[in-house]
This record gives sequence, structure tokens and C-alpha cells, in this order.
Amino acid sequence: MDGHTDRWAGRGGDTGTRGRRGDAAGGRSRPAGGRIAVPAAGFWLGWPQPSSWLGAPLEQLPTPALTLDLATLRGNAERMRERCRALGLRLRPHVKTHKTLEGAALATGGTRRGIVVSTLAEARFFAAGGFDDILYAFPVPRWRLAECSELAQRLQQFQVLVDSPQGLELLLQNPLPAGKRWLVWLKLDCGNGRAGIRPSDPEALALARAIAQGSPELVALVGVYAHCGNTYGCRDIPAIQAIARDTTAAVLEFVTALRQAGIACPQATIGSTPSCSHPVPEMSQLTEVHPGNYLFYDLQQTQLGSCRPEEVAIRVLTRVIGHYRHRGQLLLDCGWSGLSLHGRDQGPAGCAAIEGHPQLR
Amino acid sequence: MDGHTDRWAGRGGDTGTRGRRGDAAGGRSRPAGGRIAVPAAGFWLGWPQPSSWLGAPLEQLPTPALTLDLATLRGNAERMRERCRALGLRLRPHVKTHKTLEGAALATGGTRRGIVVSTLAEARFFAAGGFDDILYAFPVPRWRLAECSELAQRLQQFQVLVDSPQGLELLLQNPLPAGKRWLVWLKLDCGNGRAGIRPSDPEALALARAIAQGSPELVALVGVYAHCGNTYGCRDIPAIQAIARDTTAAVLEFVTALRQAGIACPQATIGSTPSCSHPVPEMSQLTEVHPGNYLFYDLQQTQLGSCRPEEVAIRVLTRVIGHYRHRGQLLLDCGWSGLSLHGRDQGPAGCAAIEGHPQLR
Repeated sequence: MDGHTDRWAGRGGDTGTRGRRGDAAGGRSRPAGGRIAVPAAGFWLGWPQPSSWLGAPLEQLPTPALTLDLATLRGNAERMRERCRALGLRLRPHVKTHKTLEGAALATGGTRRGIVVSTLAEARFFAAGGFDDILYAFPVPRWRLAECSELAQRLQQFQVLVDSPQGLELLLQNPLPAGKRWLVWLKLDCGNGRAGIRPSDPEALALARAIAQGSPELVALVGVYAHCGNTYGCRDIPAIQAIARDTTAAVLEFVTALRQAGIACPQATIGSTPSCSHPVPEMSQLTEVHPGNYLFYDLQQTQLGSCRPEEVAIRVLTRVIGHYRHRGQLLLDCGWSGLSLHGRDQGPAGCAAIEGHPQLR
Repeated sequence: MDGHTDRWAGRGGDTGTRGRRGDAAGGRSRPAGGRIAVPAAGFWLGWPQPSSWLGAPLEQLPTPALTLDLATLRGNAERMRERCRALGLRLRPHVKTHKTLEGAALATGGTRRGIVVSTLAEARFFAAGGFDDILYAFPVPRWRLAECSELAQRLQQFQVLVDSPQGLELLLQNPLPAGKRWLVWLKLDCGNGRAGIRPSDPEALALARAIAQGSPELVALVGVYAHCGNTYGCRDIPAIQAIARDTTAAVLEFVTALRQAGIACPQATIGSTPSCSHPVPEMSQLTEVHPGNYLFYDLQQTQLGSCRPEEVAIRVLTRVIGHYRHRGQLLLDCGWSGLSLHGRDQGPAGCAAIEGHPQLR
């Protein structure tokens, strides 16, 4: 046993990962190169500032640590931007996966304009960091309206989602100061089964009309927004593309119906990393897309076919801290709380892949 | 739909919890009383200091929030202390579940002496908060020896685990300054299958002897330590007690063998909340126990039989933010990252129980 061996463990995993070959733990170290180390969950007290880990050799990093490879990350950012350029689509990256100013700056090509957030805390964080044109992709909650109003006043463009007449009513009852209107995306549920009104729902067109034309001095319809998170249930690229095609068709059909009814709907967007990593040509008829996870990618995305293993920009760095020969197990200093249970039972080694050691499970 | 209804959701759960009765979301609010609110994962920027939430009415708290009921928590702390007093055992609470000075002060009855931590960051945090007699329950990692040494010098009692000759060798090669010795618990694996040497392993007695007698000026054997985390795989109290009995017997048999071999082993401890919530009489022959989760308890512990539902001191507070009648679903502002996937598929509502609404799933 060598309690001191440097290893690379893929996303996911579990303390006590079994190894068929106990000797696979032999020492091997790699230079950190352009990798950024980020702490896994834990306390800071007593640790040096994280910035001191930038570019440090891997063997000097505390473990478990989430490490990023900057070159890979930059490549992922550029490839998605290029893909969108080719389709004539604006890329509005979702930032909830990384929650960093640096990541969002890369993803927006340095413009710091046009992002999606999942919480108001994220919205405030990115607003304070110089970002604008921020879409809060969550049906506006009544009790957080004051926070939304504050952001709408502070930013040039703070956009909200509405998926019910009650949601619209809330905005109308709380108008912004003169010169500002609520900028609203109508959230459509095109089969994902979370938030959103179904485009086939007879109330959907009436709601779009009420947003666009009900009180144009108070509220404006920016566009329609659909998230195809159901692509995460797919097993291959054709299945993902079928969902992307169906979602795009449903969104575009709805936009056409709006236009025929005399309702202007400037924008239309769909998103999810699997669908945007292998976009279908029909998506070029949208105005934007909003994937987010692609900046890092991960084991799950390789299994979905969204990326090749070498395009995954993150690794969880862990060390072997024990070797129990009688049961053929190595003990790592990283358990599920430093990884994710989301992919439990989906990876070669439970919810992990041990890079370079496919025989470890 | 009422986007503003206060609800109580048990530990676990999933955004999009299905409800057979959509109208079960009717407004109901409860005073916060002695509850402490703690933020779920997220950023602080723009929020008031958490201390301003102490004792605030539930409806004023941001959601999702982890709320604690102080009276229940105090009752749990006192009941475990009483249980240990009755058995003549010292209670050395594990603090990794709550990671708070307040919780650890309650659990130690105000002495701030005798706790178990799972990381060195926790050790430093509690040391800085006035705690001493801290057991670091993790086989000492070579690369963190300097940190262990620093803690051993700063505290009156900083104790470490060893489960291999290599671990002991590490301590011997890095002696503490004069007047200090490494205080070592020998970690036994009595069926849990994680860290630890099996008491039946012929090397176990030799290792204990080497710790106790090899270099008494450098290293001292404090006792033997076993964790019966395998109780979490049980389905009822008798099964839990069978494991507690077996673990206790294995530990005591090993201690007896040590004494017969002339090796002094002052302490013997086992732990896990399920086993310590329903201790078997044999455990009174140990010197201490080290449960931790009992301070809060949770849905999993009610399912294991460790506690009654009313003894669970925490709730995840969430709000209903959407109602999708066509599929009979409510949308909550709390997903799995604000809860836990650990109990996925184990609760009445996926990995959750919606308090007061057993029909919601």
C-alpha cells in the first residue's frame, strides 16, 4: 500500500472503489500544466487561498479536488460558439454548472452579455461581475418578485420566465419604474415535463397574447423558451436528435401560430448540452440556444455521446489512502459527497471512471 | 396554483414531486419558533447575514432552506447523552453531519471535549472554536502528516487512526516535539468493509503491539476503534442490534486478546447512529461510542427505526412554484442538489416525505 499515490478519478465514484489489480495503484504523477484546481466540498480554515493552487503541480494539491484543464475548457467554449455561428444562432450559455465569472466570460467570448442563470443569487453574482442580458430561467416566484424588480432596474436586460396567467398577473401588479418593462420569455413544455405551458394547450396562445399585447407599457414578450432536458434520458445521438427535432418543431410551430395571430415573438430558444452538441439543421430556424454543461462536460456526457472522453475538462483528483488486499480494494480520499450520486451505477466504476485504469471498478 | 404557499418537505425529494391531489398545496404556514434556518446550497451575495434568519417566521425565509428545530435537537442531544450515562459509556459525538460549533457544544453537554471529525478542515475549525480531545477518524494520510502534527502540537489531545504497519511507520518517522506523543486508535474492520484491519487478521495483534510498545516515547495506543456503518444496510432494529452485538463482541474479544498478550488498550469504541439509538447491553463493556447523525436524525433514520418522525430536528423548507394540472404535478423550488440523492427511491415521495401530506409522492 502506498498512501501517497496520485491518481485521477473520473466524475462520480465512491470511497472504497474496488480494484481487481491492487497493484494498479502504483505511483504516477502528472504535471498540472494549465489546470485550475478548485476545492471539493469542505472548509477553508487553515488552507492557503485557492489562487495559490493555480498551475501548481498536481501532487501539491489537496485532495479531493476538482481540477480543470483550461485548454480543454477553452476548446469546448470555442467549439460550441463555432457550432452556433455556423447555424446562425446566438449562444446564450447557461452558467449554473460552473458558476464562475471566468467560465462565463469564456463562454460568451468575452462579451459578458447573454447568459442564463438558475437562481437569483447567480443573477446577482454575475450582475456584480459585469454581466448583463441575464435570463432567469425559473418561473418567477411571487416571494422573490422584489429581487427580480431590483435586478430589472439595475441591468439593461434582465429577463424572466412566465408559464401561467398567474405569473403574468404578478408582473402586472408590480410594474417597474417608468422607462422599464418586464422582459418576458414564455416558457413552453415541449415534452420535458417540468415547468412550462404546453404549446398544444389552448391557453398557451392566449397567454402569449396577454404577455405581448395586454399591457405593452408594462410587459414585453421577448420570445419563447423551451428546455429539452429529456435528452438526458436518451441512450444515443439519434435519440437525442429526435428530441431536439421534435422540440424545435413544436417551438417553431407555436411561433408560426403566434405570427398568424398577429403576435410578435422576436426570439425562440431551446437548450440542453446533448442537443446542442449534435444540433439538427432545423435548429437554425431558432434565434438562440442555451446549453451550459458543455463547458466542462463530464462522464455522463461521454455516455450520452455529447463529447469524447478527451473533451471532458474536469477531473476529480483523489489519492489512494488504503489498500485492503484480502478484499481487493483500494480506499480513496474521495467519497460520493465529493463526486456525485447522480450517475450512480452508470459509470464503469459505479458512478466513476478511473482514468487510465478501466480494470478498476 | 399558488406560487407562494409554505410547505414542509422532508429530507430528500425531487423537483416535480407528483401530487395525486393538486389542491393539497393549499396555503398553510407555521411559526418558526425555535427553528434555526440554514441556507441550502447557493451563493450569499446580496443576502442578509444568516443570523438575521434566526427565529424568523418560516414564511420570511428564503427557500430552499434547511431548518432546524432547536427543542428537538436539544432533546436528541440529551437523550443520547442519557443513554450513554445509563450504559456507563462516554459519548464522543461525530460532528461531520452538522459541522457547527453550536451543535458540537450541545452534543458534548457544553464540555467541548471529546469529538470525532472526518476531515482535517473540521479538526482545525473545531480547534479554533475551543474544542479539544479531537479524534481524526481517517487513516492518517502521508501527505497530510504535517497538518496532523500541527494539530497534535496545538491541542492537548489530538488523536489519529492507524490501520496498517505503513501508517504506524509514518508516525514513527515523523515524531512530535519532546513532551508530545502520537495518540493512536487502532482502526478495526469488524464487517463494515471500509478502512480498518480485521481483528481476525494475524497482523492485527502485532500491529497493536507495535503501536503500544514499539516506541512508547513516540507513540501511544489510546484504544481500538470500529465503525459499524453496515447497520445502514439493515431493515429493522433487530438486524441493527445483531450487527452492534457482533461488532462489540469482535472488539471486546480483540481487547481481551491484547490484554492476554500483555498489551494495554485503555479504550474501545464503536459507533453509528442506528446502533447507538438502540444500544445492546453488551456495549456497556466498551468505554465510549461515537454516533453523530442522531443530533438531527433524518428520513433515512426513521426508516431504519433509529428515531420517530417527530424526533427529526431538520426539515427542508420549500415552496410550491407551479401547478401542472394536466399531469397532476406540483413544482417545488427545491431539487436534488438542495436535498440528497442518497435516499433516492427510498422515501414515500421518491427520496422525500412531504410532511402532513402522505398522498403526495
